[in-house]
Amino acid sequence: MPISMSSASLPIFRTMLSNLSHILDKGVAHAQVRKFDPQVLAADRLAPDMLPLTRQIQIACDAAKNGVARLSGVQAPRFEDNETTFEELKARIAKTLAWLDTVPPAQLDGTEDKEITFPVGRETTRTMKGEAYLKHWVLPNLFFHVTTAYAILRHNGVELGKSDYLVGPQ
Amino acid sequence: MPISMSSASLPIFRTMLSNLSHILDKGVAHAQVRKFDPQVLAADRLAPDMLPLTRQIQIACDAAKNGVARLSGVQAPRFEDNETTFEELKARIAKTLAWLDTVPPAQLDGTEDKEITFPVGRETTRTMKGEAYLKHWVLPNLFFHVTTAYAILRHNGVELGKSDYLVGPQ
Repeated sequence: MPISMSSASLPIFRTMLSNLSHILDKGVAHAQVRKFDPQVLAADRLAPDMLPLTRQIQIACDAAKNGVARLSGVQAPRFEDNETTFEELKARIAKTLAWLDTVPPAQLDGTEDKEITFPVGRETTRTMKGEAYLKHWVLPNLFFHVTTAYAILRHNGVELGKSDYLVGPQ
Repeated sequence: MPISMSSASLPIFRTMLSNLSHILDKGVAHAQVRKFDPQVLAADRLAPDMLPLTRQIQIACDAAKNGVARLSGVQAPRFEDNETTFEELKARIAKTLAWLDTVPPAQLDGTEDKEITFPVGRETTRTMKGEAYLKHWVLPNLFFHVTTAYAILRHNGVELGKSDYLVGPQ
């Protein structure tokens, strides 16, 4: 049976956000073992003009949340982007996962050709059909920010392997 | 119309591998402007026990190539993993893209429930159904290695933005 829009989105979003939460746990555990404040990791970035770990988590959550909201037409809650601690970041992921669970998959199905207009930067928008929007915008963005969060922690010595990135309910 | 297995894979693979080639171009251009040998970037990694840029490119190519080969049953060419220069890495991507173009999409379609057994590490294998294999193994791996390649270059000062990662024929 061909893949529905809900099946091409929700299970991937759930798995990757759950894995992201697991990756954060490993960051906290590493800081505890090495006896440093995990906040150092939360504020770290791979380049001075790249976003820090906190923003990577917020944007990964929003990639999934806004993608599902725009496709399904179900209004998503607005989050304040005020998380600074690992505990708050994990709560942000949990809130996003909980909201995803409230969206009826049937609201996503059949949106392959729905015109989706979304902001790109602060002043422009872009319009894509639902299927292209999912495949060429939402998914690449979600994976980008999950992988970058992983990379920031890995670069700081956190013991992570590919299995931490791929782990989770599948 | 629900998404076919070919549509859920080939266009994403083509876009992301093309973007990866574009990202490498920016790495070379940066090295030329700063007058250093681009080989320094090719051998760089984000952590001492992480894979260098060369391997990120090779594995990104193989994620797409092996994924399509296993799903479609079309035999893929074997590449030697002997690339060291940016020119060779770009040729590896081009060879992979050229091979993807030879695979009839119809050979991928209908493989949602096909049992796919694939190596995980050197001594074990895993079996997943085609749709889950694509969504929870091939796609996450492809995006992981493209993003990590981007991160290695970005960490080294190459002027890359999200649009370089998302650019390309969509």
